[in-house]
Amino acid sequence: LRLYSFFRSSAAFRVRIALNLKGLRWESSAIDLVKGEHHTLQFEQVNPQRAIPALLDGNQTLIQSMAIVEYLEETHPDPPLLPATTGERSWVRAIAQLIACDIHPLNNLRVMKYLKKDLGVGQEQRDAWVRHWIGEGFSNLEAMIKRHPQTGPFCHGNSPTIADVFLVPQIFNARRAKMDLSAYPTLLRIFDSCMALPAFDLAQPMKQPDAREDYL
Amino acid sequence: LRLYSFFRSSAAFRVRIALNLKGLRWESSAIDLVKGEHHTLQFEQVNPQRAIPALLDGNQTLIQSMAIVEYLEETHPDPPLLPATTGERSWVRAIAQLIACDIHPLNNLRVMKYLKKDLGVGQEQRDAWVRHWIGEGFSNLEAMIKRHPQTGPFCHGNSPTIADVFLVPQIFNARRAKMDLSAYPTLLRIFDSCMALPAFDLAQPMKQPDAREDYL
Repeated sequence: LRLYSFFRSSAAFRVRIALNLKGLRWESSAIDLVKGEHHTLQFEQVNPQRAIPALLDGNQTLIQSMAIVEYLEETHPDPPLLPATTGERSWVRAIAQLIACDIHPLNNLRVMKYLKKDLGVGQEQRDAWVRHWIGEGFSNLEAMIKRHPQTGPFCHGNSPTIADVFLVPQIFNARRAKMDLSAYPTLLRIFDSCMALPAFDLAQPMKQPDAREDYL
Repeated sequence: LRLYSFFRSSAAFRVRIALNLKGLRWESSAIDLVKGEHHTLQFEQVNPQRAIPALLDGNQTLIQSMAIVEYLEETHPDPPLLPATTGERSWVRAIAQLIACDIHPLNNLRVMKYLKKDLGVGQEQRDAWVRHWIGEGFSNLEAMIKRHPQTGPFCHGNSPTIADVFLVPQIFNARRAKMDLSAYPTLLRIFDSCMALPAFDLAQPMKQPDAREDYL
């Protein structure tokens, strides 16, 4: 297994956590998104979307973090990252999708570049943009998870699921944006449960071989 | 089965297609997003995220279109909307996720409102924004699907999958934005295959009971 990764990418971070939770051995190839290494012809052969993460498994190339995590769940079912019943599985996937669709896409590098270069939006308004979308998403998540009867030390029950795999990188992003997260105590409590596990801890940005202080 | 839907919402459109492809009977409750009916206390009891779609199945409420479609696939496996092998399933999910994460979230109503009201971005630049993100996503999709050996009349093979369920509503959105789609012949060919099927045709915005010409 070879993961094309960038230390700061939260989509790559999700896959690193899932690989670790499944207890899999994997190697990483660093793609520096700030330098634009995802736009090289060489990387386009790996992933025509020129995005990370991409996971090589034998002669197969898998893309899109959610599709990769579902693949790992199907190919390596133990330990499970989805609950047993269809309703619970849908709930866990919904949390992951809320983060993957309703929070993360608005704040990634290509969008921030477009706001700056094409629309002339200044630093202060760009920061407010990031805080707005993360804040809206986290408010919804906090309300949903807080009142759900099956919430435990983790988003769902007593062991990590796909929901936690998606939540933790988004909290790292929020902290990088220097957000006050005190309004989301349930999310922070779950974050702490996750980070106590080596699978999450070892996947974090600054513990990757391509980590750079000057990119933060 | 009761679907909380809005005729123009492409996320609700996806679920309408999936319900139809599965041959299920369902009723709809219209939530007018333009009027802000998703922000009522009544609807917040259904979905604390105050977003559509939401699907009621008995006493369960399911949210997030991808999580709902995966649920329908697990609870009603026939006809399948995912292929048989793990690699193919991941490919089909990746196409759906590219649309759900990398195209759609940038162009929905709440984002367009923020650009207008909070950032003072004018109509012309908002239109350019929409065309930019759809264009970037469709260019990637066209390249990926065109060269994939298992592309058929549909995104994957000879019958519709989750990939088609997500592609068709996004093409409707692109046409509403008056985009020239001639650079994406593979996507348009697949669109035509899909729209020839009643499951897709009957799910389209203007065939919903809450359709309004003045909202287009």
